[in-house]
Amino acid sequence: MPIVSESELERRRQEILEAARTCFARYGYEGATVRRLEEASGKSRGAIFHHFGDKENLFLEIARADADRQADVVARDGLIEVMRGILRDPSHHEWLVTRLEIASMLRTDTTFRAKWQQHQESLDAAVRERLRSNLARDSMRTDVSVDVLQAFLETLMDGFITRLSSGQDFAEMEKVLDLAEGAIRGN
Amino acid sequence: MPIVSESELERRRQEILEAARTCFARYGYEGATVRRLEEASGKSRGAIFHHFGDKENLFLEIARADADRQADVVARDGLIEVMRGILRDPSHHEWLVTRLEIASMLRTDTTFRAKWQQHQESLDAAVRERLRSNLARDSMRTDVSVDVLQAFLETLMDGFITRLSSGQDFAEMEKVLDLAEGAIRGN
Repeated sequence: MPIVSESELERRRQEILEAARTCFARYGYEGATVRRLEEASGKSRGAIFHHFGDKENLFLEIARADADRQADVVARDGLIEVMRGILRDPSHHEWLVTRLEIASMLRTDTTFRAKWQQHQESLDAAVRERLRSNLARDSMRTDVSVDVLQAFLETLMDGFITRLSSGQDFAEMEKVLDLAEGAIRGN
Repeated sequence: MPIVSESELERRRQEILEAARTCFARYGYEGATVRRLEEASGKSRGAIFHHFGDKENLFLEIARADADRQADVVARDGLIEVMRGILRDPSHHEWLVTRLEIASMLRTDTTFRAKWQQHQESLDAAVRERLRSNLARDSMRTDVSVDVLQAFLETLMDGFITRLSSGQDFAEMEKVLDLAEGAIRGN
């Protein structure tokens, strides 16, 4: 059996993740069958599941990569800036459709919900941390608790994702985000 | 053939609508098969489709009835009050799951999207009218256009529906709605 370096393994892993993302975006979570994942990645199911265990974990890894990237943006510029970034990148909108699909899995499948929350933890923590540090720097309203501000931002983000991924009109969305930013600051 | 009065027809129609709503809430849009709709309503598929044409129209009629009821609340108290009403009535949350399912239909099926928008028109119009009348009564901020305020409220409502129907924590939601109300008023 040939020896494969760590970096080569990581490269193959990233290739599968990228191909799977495109496949999920195109066919949805349910529609991205193992056969389609094989076709998209050019890898056998054996190779795919060697890296990721099963389709659910493969999907969750993509979501975690998103959450980690978004957590970096949140730490620098806040969750509203994450939304502005998504708005500017229409190639990302299709992938968001999977978020609608998994929302019903979140409701009915408590194991999946626990895993999902674990994979989103970096983002949640970054939002909380950012709000606390804004509070400490006096750049935020103080009459509403950080928990409420976080719930407000996350609810808005869910709605934002729904509207973008269902192809609804989002002409006013930049200004909606300005409004939300003002509401968080308290001006 | 027996003569059936108008009011009797309307009664049967309402019976089917109510049974179908429960069935959609329980099994989702896709999962609510014609067989399950028959079982839930105690009516034959012939009787169901005599009244509603097909499953899509049956579903849209339920959504329209919701939109009409919500439009009445909006006219009196605004869209935030609609959300407060939903929050207080957990029996309604399951039905909202269908909204997640149809979001992807909205994206891919333009005919369905056109019909959906037509069925939601009473609600959209009520929100627009309410915002305009608040503006005229000086009870609302004037530095943001009515279109943006409407998009903000509707985005928040979409996120609100996603969170409720995916069984996510909504402990802070009442306060989130207070915050949104303040953002609309400009305080």
